[in-house]
Amino acid sequence: MSTFDSLMAYERDTQALGQISGRLGWDQETMMPRGAAAQRGEEMAAIEAVLHARRSAPQVAEWLETAKAPDEAGAAQLREIKRAFERTVKVPADLAKRLARVTSEAQGKWAAARADEDVAAFLPVLQEVVALKREEGQALAAGGDLYDAMVEDYEHGTTADEIAAIFDAMRPGLVDLRARVLDKPAPKALQGSFDEAAQMKLTRKLAKTFGYDMSHGRVDKAVHPFSSGSGLDVRITTRTSENDPFNCFYSTIHEVGHAAYEQGINQEFLLTPLGRGVSMGVHESQSRIYENQIGRSEAFTGWLYGEMRQVFDDFGIEDAAEFYKAVNAVHNGYIRTEADELQYNLHIMLRFDLERALMTGDLEVQDLESAWNDRFEADFGYAVDKPSNGCLQDVHWSVGLFGYFPTYSLGNVYAGCLNQKMRADITDLDAELAAGNTGSATGWLRQNLQQYGGLRSPRDTITQAAGKSPSHEPLMQYLEDKFTRLYDL
Amino acid sequence: MSTFDSLMAYERDTQALGQISGRLGWDQETMMPRGAAAQRGEEMAAIEAVLHARRSAPQVAEWLETAKAPDEAGAAQLREIKRAFERTVKVPADLAKRLARVTSEAQGKWAAARADEDVAAFLPVLQEVVALKREEGQALAAGGDLYDAMVEDYEHGTTADEIAAIFDAMRPGLVDLRARVLDKPAPKALQGSFDEAAQMKLTRKLAKTFGYDMSHGRVDKAVHPFSSGSGLDVRITTRTSENDPFNCFYSTIHEVGHAAYEQGINQEFLLTPLGRGVSMGVHESQSRIYENQIGRSEAFTGWLYGEMRQVFDDFGIEDAAEFYKAVNAVHNGYIRTEADELQYNLHIMLRFDLERALMTGDLEVQDLESAWNDRFEADFGYAVDKPSNGCLQDVHWSVGLFGYFPTYSLGNVYAGCLNQKMRADITDLDAELAAGNTGSATGWLRQNLQQYGGLRSPRDTITQAAGKSPSHEPLMQYLEDKFTRLYDL
Repeated sequence: MSTFDSLMAYERDTQALGQISGRLGWDQETMMPRGAAAQRGEEMAAIEAVLHARRSAPQVAEWLETAKAPDEAGAAQLREIKRAFERTVKVPADLAKRLARVTSEAQGKWAAARADEDVAAFLPVLQEVVALKREEGQALAAGGDLYDAMVEDYEHGTTADEIAAIFDAMRPGLVDLRARVLDKPAPKALQGSFDEAAQMKLTRKLAKTFGYDMSHGRVDKAVHPFSSGSGLDVRITTRTSENDPFNCFYSTIHEVGHAAYEQGINQEFLLTPLGRGVSMGVHESQSRIYENQIGRSEAFTGWLYGEMRQVFDDFGIEDAAEFYKAVNAVHNGYIRTEADELQYNLHIMLRFDLERALMTGDLEVQDLESAWNDRFEADFGYAVDKPSNGCLQDVHWSVGLFGYFPTYSLGNVYAGCLNQKMRADITDLDAELAAGNTGSATGWLRQNLQQYGGLRSPRDTITQAAGKSPSHEPLMQYLEDKFTRLYDL
Repeated sequence: MSTFDSLMAYERDTQALGQISGRLGWDQETMMPRGAAAQRGEEMAAIEAVLHARRSAPQVAEWLETAKAPDEAGAAQLREIKRAFERTVKVPADLAKRLARVTSEAQGKWAAARADEDVAAFLPVLQEVVALKREEGQALAAGGDLYDAMVEDYEHGTTADEIAAIFDAMRPGLVDLRARVLDKPAPKALQGSFDEAAQMKLTRKLAKTFGYDMSHGRVDKAVHPFSSGSGLDVRITTRTSENDPFNCFYSTIHEVGHAAYEQGINQEFLLTPLGRGVSMGVHESQSRIYENQIGRSEAFTGWLYGEMRQVFDDFGIEDAAEFYKAVNAVHNGYIRTEADELQYNLHIMLRFDLERALMTGDLEVQDLESAWNDRFEADFGYAVDKPSNGCLQDVHWSVGLFGYFPTYSLGNVYAGCLNQKMRADITDLDAELAAGNTGSATGWLRQNLQQYGGLRSPRDTITQAAGKSPSHEPLMQYLEDKFTRLYDL
């Protein structure tokens, strides 16, 4: 066996163990008996220790020194193995342990503080998390920008300055568009209650309609919708709410976007470092384009309206035009996860700027709440009423996820670029979507993006598919066009 | 940390990884998308390789040399770690690989041969399996009896001679009792069809009735009923058949017996070598006493009859007495897994004698079918009509399970011993069972047996609980009494 083959065989087992760890996570959120949590914690710790030992094994470094890639994909494999190895060994084991302990504690304190609307109760432990994350960032950055090093974990090859340039270019237009939309009367809302079993039945139909392969996946209910796994076993979850069927349907379409990406990767990359979505941002581009540019389009919602009328009969919406408005309703609100596609990015930009400032030291933890509240009021035009609607609403910072937030909006930006090119390539797409046929769209995404997995960098993945470098302009144009028409601006 | 503590910490992770592997097996039979099999195969191989490396690590031998047990339980831990380590390192890696390859092939050929009723198509690969198993047996036996070494894997501390002595003592009585029962008219059978969702609802109630802790387990459907996992996460499966609700209910009660054993083990042993059922035979004693001595008792079936009448209304059985007979019906039949508690042991003894003779060389593979058919006719009084009803009916030999079959009947023998003592200790047990209350019985089993897990040897586990050494007499007396009364012999 060549050194390259030995390394790849080793990697394959590591990837397989990583899939197992992921499946345990899925089980925990869907199937696990509630009394099993303590044991599951030990099981997860045991397999994570195995994975960490494999990922940081000196043998990997030795193989990497002499392995010769047989082709372009092989070179990409070596590049990704090297990147992961170097990432793993950069963080001292002791620091990783302290981070695990403090973030575990912080998550509990965050949940309690949010329930009690007590920011002060959370800040001391957040201070510890921030200090440790900065230490980790310094270890990762090796002299470079520590927040860049954090972003690198989720969107490698993209710097915080590049992200800031995109976000800063979008913000004034979004603030303005949002204000104009909210000056108009709100669209009519859905009335009545929606049987939850019927929601699940239609949601499974929607998943299949969007190309989700049920022979390599399954749909279950969970508190938080998510997609889990790569390759031949990619499972999704959704949720139901009696009065809000859109929550179920658009959660499902969103997760199908993530899952279809994983299912669509070239099977030659199965259980290799290239056999997974390349980055969080590119992943989010798939979930968002499925959910928004396709799923919330006028054409597709016309079809969905007919499906929902068949299943739920009358729910107070008279025609497809009214339904399209209901799907795309824009309301005032404080919560990121409940935001529509127009306002969502403003929530993200706020978090990006604040967490970056926390990491660079330009913002102190004790000033976080006022910084949050000032920024929110500046962009949204009204004040945060309580911490659970403000800086305590997200779990991310308590568990040490710094550098992750911007990838949500990067995904939206990427989705805008992809949508522009896809619409140019498939001129009769709306006619197909109006018939509930997403095949051309999902086929285009698979052909031009999904199949490549980790072969190219995140930026190159988007650039190759969209035919030009990522830019905020297509998304802004799309939002401007869509909401101008929808709200008669 | 002391050497003992280091070893135990290491063991704890190994046990946790073993639990993960078991959970993947559960997932495969219940939740896994059908197209995921190939990837799952690689995942299972990866975690099994990790487990094998941990179990045979030289470090374990080094720790074992100097570790000092702090107490009796600690000494038992060291004893079990040593036993598992020595077992693992005795079989050369190359032999283990050849066995894995040949049994994988043999399982496919067995399934095809069974479908085609073609014994000759199976014998060549069975010959290979037998040869490799003998090689493995010799490695394990290290000069001793190779079939004893195989039994040791499933019922350590018990020899084939000891088992043969028990079985030989039972056989004439069973053959005779069986013949007398089958001379009598068959009891009335259940009529009609039984809604499968209603079966699952009642089966969950039965599981709880028998003390299965749903906060540390769950009940799902699978092709073959099984129990999976130890400690705080012990899941069971059952199945439904529209015309045979007993299949569902008694599969559930049987698996609850296995699961309650795992759930009942002292939690101080969680994720240690003592934190699992001590042997296959002792495990089977729990499933059988739940299923038969308790679940098929006149008292308990009286309660179950009332439950079933409430759920299914009229199913052609007029009263509890007739229902008791229907639950315990004895019919002619060829298939072990469909056999009643009287005839079941004859099926096992046949397999025990034949597989032992195959291993010692007293029986050649080419003579297996005629030996099977002769023995079957001698015990059951009629001839095997086709191989799928004869020597091709079980998967066990194709996958290399030699030494496993006898533990099913050992479990019955143990259950007889336990039942005798339990009945002596709880004098009003029938009154409780007649009210659907199994608490005293399951509490007795937990108190006297289940809590100890692997602390004592299988034999000592039974001896301590039953108050005397294992013997066939209580089981034979129980069967004689039960079926004499049931069939007016």
